[in-house]
Amino acid sequence: MTAITIIGLGLIGGSLALSLRQHGLADRLIGVEANPASARRALELGLVDEIDSGLAAAVVAASLVIVAVPMDAMLTVLPQVLDIIFDNQVVIDVGSTKGSLLAAVASHPRRGRFVAVHPMAGTEYSGPDAAVRGLFEGKTLVVCDAEASDPDAVQVVETLFRALPMRVLHLGAADHDLHTAYVSHISHLTSFALALTVLEKERRGEQRIFDLAGGGFASTVRLAKSAPATWVPIFRQNRENVLDVLDEHLLQLNKLRELLAGEDYPGLTRQLEHANEIKKIIP
Amino acid sequence: MTAITIIGLGLIGGSLALSLRQHGLADRLIGVEANPASARRALELGLVDEIDSGLAAAVVAASLVIVAVPMDAMLTVLPQVLDIIFDNQVVIDVGSTKGSLLAAVASHPRRGRFVAVHPMAGTEYSGPDAAVRGLFEGKTLVVCDAEASDPDAVQVVETLFRALPMRVLHLGAADHDLHTAYVSHISHLTSFALALTVLEKERRGEQRIFDLAGGGFASTVRLAKSAPATWVPIFRQNRENVLDVLDEHLLQLNKLRELLAGEDYPGLTRQLEHANEIKKIIP
Repeated sequence: MTAITIIGLGLIGGSLALSLRQHGLADRLIGVEANPASARRALELGLVDEIDSGLAAAVVAASLVIVAVPMDAMLTVLPQVLDIIFDNQVVIDVGSTKGSLLAAVASHPRRGRFVAVHPMAGTEYSGPDAAVRGLFEGKTLVVCDAEASDPDAVQVVETLFRALPMRVLHLGAADHDLHTAYVSHISHLTSFALALTVLEKERRGEQRIFDLAGGGFASTVRLAKSAPATWVPIFRQNRENVLDVLDEHLLQLNKLRELLAGEDYPGLTRQLEHANEIKKIIP
Repeated sequence: MTAITIIGLGLIGGSLALSLRQHGLADRLIGVEANPASARRALELGLVDEIDSGLAAAVVAASLVIVAVPMDAMLTVLPQVLDIIFDNQVVIDVGSTKGSLLAAVASHPRRGRFVAVHPMAGTEYSGPDAAVRGLFEGKTLVVCDAEASDPDAVQVVETLFRALPMRVLHLGAADHDLHTAYVSHISHLTSFALALTVLEKERRGEQRIFDLAGGGFASTVRLAKSAPATWVPIFRQNRENVLDVLDEHLLQLNKLRELLAGEDYPGLTRQLEHANEIKKIIP
């Protein structure tokens, strides 16, 4: 009988619960959730079979423990979980940044039982009601610094996620944090800034935006609905990479601004043609 | 028998052709297309029944003429069409900016037969192959400066678009250009700049971006696939509004940057919470 414990039943933890059940990968799903209203809701939605109020009881009952709390809480919860587990158990995080977290558990005596993974999927919604079926299907699971984990633990985790099914990609933690700053964190920052821009400029005409907003606006601004409690800790833990990419982005925006302000339309055309090369990457 | 002529068979002209046919709003669809390859392709795809090589013949044959060319060509094609038409015909543009265009035809003797409209819908693709069914369904049609058009012409146009079905919203041209800068043009500029940022930073790791890019990245960067031939003329004709919104956006991005650089996480949280208010506008 396979029991899996999920700590944190928000978008990622809740969606994982749904996927694990859908693919018959857990006989029993145990949840731990700090927010009482979220805990009740997770039970109502049938995300887990039971909620344990004590961390220790929930952790020892499972062969696999998934820690899916925001990145600030992650830095304290993950070491607590590693303090509790036995040597035949496996623990994973599903966090968006890895450098600080791996440093925090680097010298833990049970470091080998921990596998750092990041399923590259999400939405702008949060909490148990945000949990959706199939969120991870066909997406990439990044496994970080696998050489610091016990080979049998890595094997268990990869087998599980491949069954969702997900593709597995190995990356060093530093590389992971650098690349996610490009492909995820900067998108969120620009989307937040875009929302602030429009809110500032359209203070008195909100209904008008709603009437006019086409698909383009909705798709660039939707990430601005994301929870600050999720994203501030991510920006904080990946601060240097995020600032570096943000500075490059400001440079590119200022370049476009200069071309338009200076009415250099051939130059502006060349820049947009260059931007079109993103088609090669995101078909 | 209702014949409609569409000049320019790209994303918008082609999609309109599909919608008009689907809803039985035209017995005969006549196309005019400057690019010979696009003209052939539009016929192959069945977007129109025939292609006329001469503008005059195509225009006089129709009760309604739709001009769906890029905004730079629009400034010369629309007056040419108005020169040709009879007083019982109706002409519309479907352009993304209105100020320059309405100024260009303000004193035309047949100004009354022209109705300026902007269907608020699109995708990042272009050309006849980009034409999609249902693109306009449930979206908003902005009618600009309707008081400068003959009432019967406005009536014809509104009845037609309500049948797609679209909602009709009246706006002054200046208001239209201001608001579209917020809800469409700035989204495209930031998306182009985001693509340039990532291309610059990931010059040697394109496959990695592809592996890691989740839905958030794809949705914020997809507009960067848009055609420069479409967008440079839009930015040019709406230059002052676009620069104004871009400057506000740079201000907001720099504010987020300062909060992160200065490690003011409560301040950053407050800003992101404020950005979350976009939920009220885009549910």
